[in-house]
Amino acid sequence: MHKPVTAEIISIGDELLYGQILDTNSKWLSEEMDKIGVRVIRKTTIGDDPEAMIQAFKLASKKADIILMTGGLGPTKDDLTKNVLAEFFNSSMKLFPDALEDVRHFFESRGRELSPTNRSQAYLPSNCTYIQNAVGTAPGMWFEEYKSVWMSMPGVPHEMKYLMENAVIPKIKEKYKLPVIYHKVIKTIGIGESWLSDIISEWEDQLPSHIRLAYLPSLGEVKLRLTGFGNSFDLIVKEVDEEIDKLEPLISKYIYGFNTDTIASVIGQTLIQNNENIAIAESCTGGYLSHVVTSIPGASNYYNGGIIPYHNAFKENLLDVDPVTLSTKGAVSEDTVIEMSKQVRLKFKSTYGLATSGVAGPGGGSKEKPVGLVWIACHDGEKCLTRKLQLTKDRLINIQLTSTASLNLLRETILQNRK
Amino acid sequence: MHKPVTAEIISIGDELLYGQILDTNSKWLSEEMDKIGVRVIRKTTIGDDPEAMIQAFKLASKKADIILMTGGLGPTKDDLTKNVLAEFFNSSMKLFPDALEDVRHFFESRGRELSPTNRSQAYLPSNCTYIQNAVGTAPGMWFEEYKSVWMSMPGVPHEMKYLMENAVIPKIKEKYKLPVIYHKVIKTIGIGESWLSDIISEWEDQLPSHIRLAYLPSLGEVKLRLTGFGNSFDLIVKEVDEEIDKLEPLISKYIYGFNTDTIASVIGQTLIQNNENIAIAESCTGGYLSHVVTSIPGASNYYNGGIIPYHNAFKENLLDVDPVTLSTKGAVSEDTVIEMSKQVRLKFKSTYGLATSGVAGPGGGSKEKPVGLVWIACHDGEKCLTRKLQLTKDRLINIQLTSTASLNLLRETILQNRK
Repeated sequence: MHKPVTAEIISIGDELLYGQILDTNSKWLSEEMDKIGVRVIRKTTIGDDPEAMIQAFKLASKKADIILMTGGLGPTKDDLTKNVLAEFFNSSMKLFPDALEDVRHFFESRGRELSPTNRSQAYLPSNCTYIQNAVGTAPGMWFEEYKSVWMSMPGVPHEMKYLMENAVIPKIKEKYKLPVIYHKVIKTIGIGESWLSDIISEWEDQLPSHIRLAYLPSLGEVKLRLTGFGNSFDLIVKEVDEEIDKLEPLISKYIYGFNTDTIASVIGQTLIQNNENIAIAESCTGGYLSHVVTSIPGASNYYNGGIIPYHNAFKENLLDVDPVTLSTKGAVSEDTVIEMSKQVRLKFKSTYGLATSGVAGPGGGSKEKPVGLVWIACHDGEKCLTRKLQLTKDRLINIQLTSTASLNLLRETILQNRK
Repeated sequence: MHKPVTAEIISIGDELLYGQILDTNSKWLSEEMDKIGVRVIRKTTIGDDPEAMIQAFKLASKKADIILMTGGLGPTKDDLTKNVLAEFFNSSMKLFPDALEDVRHFFESRGRELSPTNRSQAYLPSNCTYIQNAVGTAPGMWFEEYKSVWMSMPGVPHEMKYLMENAVIPKIKEKYKLPVIYHKVIKTIGIGESWLSDIISEWEDQLPSHIRLAYLPSLGEVKLRLTGFGNSFDLIVKEVDEEIDKLEPLISKYIYGFNTDTIASVIGQTLIQNNENIAIAESCTGGYLSHVVTSIPGASNYYNGGIIPYHNAFKENLLDVDPVTLSTKGAVSEDTVIEMSKQVRLKFKSTYGLATSGVAGPGGGSKEKPVGLVWIACHDGEKCLTRKLQLTKDRLINIQLTSTASLNLLRETILQNRK
């Protein structure tokens, strides 16, 4: 096994420290490094502050083979990064004719003249390799110093991506013999992280050291990420897949998909395959469940429509729910969601009808029907699966959890019908 | 002016280094620190790696008064933060009875038993102050060591926010004398950032140096954040409010609210005040617009319901849209949304009816009706305001922009009717 090639990502900019900008660059850089087998060991965010930069550069060079820096470049930042790098590497600034030509061309092709500020962007630390930025004016700079590779890029996302895709990643692949990394993510639903962990603990313990497991919980779901390291891609894939083959029977009823599958996308694919469709009657989820389903491109292939009868009168008038059910059992009851799911299915002429009714909160609760109590139902024309949920005090979380649970109920219905 | 109180944010988790998770926590934490006048000086992201953690803790304690750590907590096997902190502070692990009680109660109130893994979550470093996490099982831990404050929190966003809002921020305000900062955010809608900037540029130029303006654009809206710095809270508030009094007349028709107002919450308050209500017919927004409205607690006071007739047949059958309109003008047309808004208003007996119909994409476009073309309408029983939108190629962005524009159309209708 090769010693892993490591990287550190340094993001520079006051706006990142004030929290005004969401840092999507470092996530993207991490993903790209991960794809090519470079192990990111740390990410640092600092302000437009020379002292903090020097300290970050010193630290990074101790452990990282590759240091990717974004930000602090461009006319509004006074090209601080460039000047601090020159100081850090003890090099002078030099005019790079290629850089000057490219900056001039960038402006002329847009019908604009080169201003003095722009011209100064062609002055770079003399020890750098100039990397052309064809989609912006701030040049990329590649350095090989202190046994590491250093790449300085502008913070504007599409410019940084351009430089990475066109220059940096190819240069890294050329320079280093990279190990192979293979990830596979198993998506589970309907079981909590600690319960899942208990069920699979023996399997987890027997994993070889070059295959690691991470738990990534989110609302109502838990992702299991298996990561294999090695020298041969085909061998790693085979080994990781073998571990998954061992894992699946232990938790098969909770697994709904892999990698970038979402519960909505998987249900969509299944409905398309089966030539089936759905309609949704929502009370407490107020449109969110339909939104989750219709977020998926092509949803019109299997989503017929929905109705949101937010008051009991409309559950009666527009969805034909029996007024006796509503007055005796109430809107938040098993009987009501059975009728809602049955009726919405009929009205939209769909294979399945889903329904939700509950107390989303924070108000509206009572002793018998507290905030977080939700009933859901899935009707397939013959039978109806229902589930009672006892959720949280948080309205939005209750809405999200109910939607996830409803899609899971539909998934279970489809699975049951398959047998 | 006091010496600034500084903070460092340390985010822990392999999933952050691999780029599989977008780090929204550190942005939120930065914003919260900025609001109370604490200066974030660095943000560091490391893996579930004891050595990297210890190094990061050592570095942080040199410069930062407050160290906020997220991640690496929870009941599964790869959670190290707690144990590494105990090592770093040279303290032993101890059972905290309060923590045990709270974990037990968390599970029992959900009808579940305490597993051994969960029970171990009540063992914490003996030098910490236990901070209850009422929305999850991983406890918060507050330490005062090496002249700094250290707060360890789970990485799950809503749990971290709960701890920050309920415990950490109050404790920080109690412990430190923070500079006086007063923010006021003006929420605008229906105008782009550069146009807005042009209109208000003279006003912006005359702002005194201790009052700063930041433009915070988001989808379909621009927030203007005025921040005043000083020694006397009352004086700063007065000064900032005076600047806003100068600003408002310049852009009054675009301002819909302040601070944490959202377009949905403001509309909700207005409808309640006017004793009015709405119903929504959605095609391309697929439930999202209703969801935005019903996200607001108390929405049942003014939201009667909605219908999502995702196919033309249902626009006809369930919403009584004229089939001739559909066949001659098509679903994505001004005529169709006029009818949809008119009919949904009648069906749900509401004051206003809103309707959306468009090509969300990425598929479904044509030369005449490309992806991003959307019609919206707001009917008040007498007249109907419509608007044609030409948006993007991105499905989710189109859905969000359409919803914002629809709520703005309703806002304009209400304003017009007021005159």
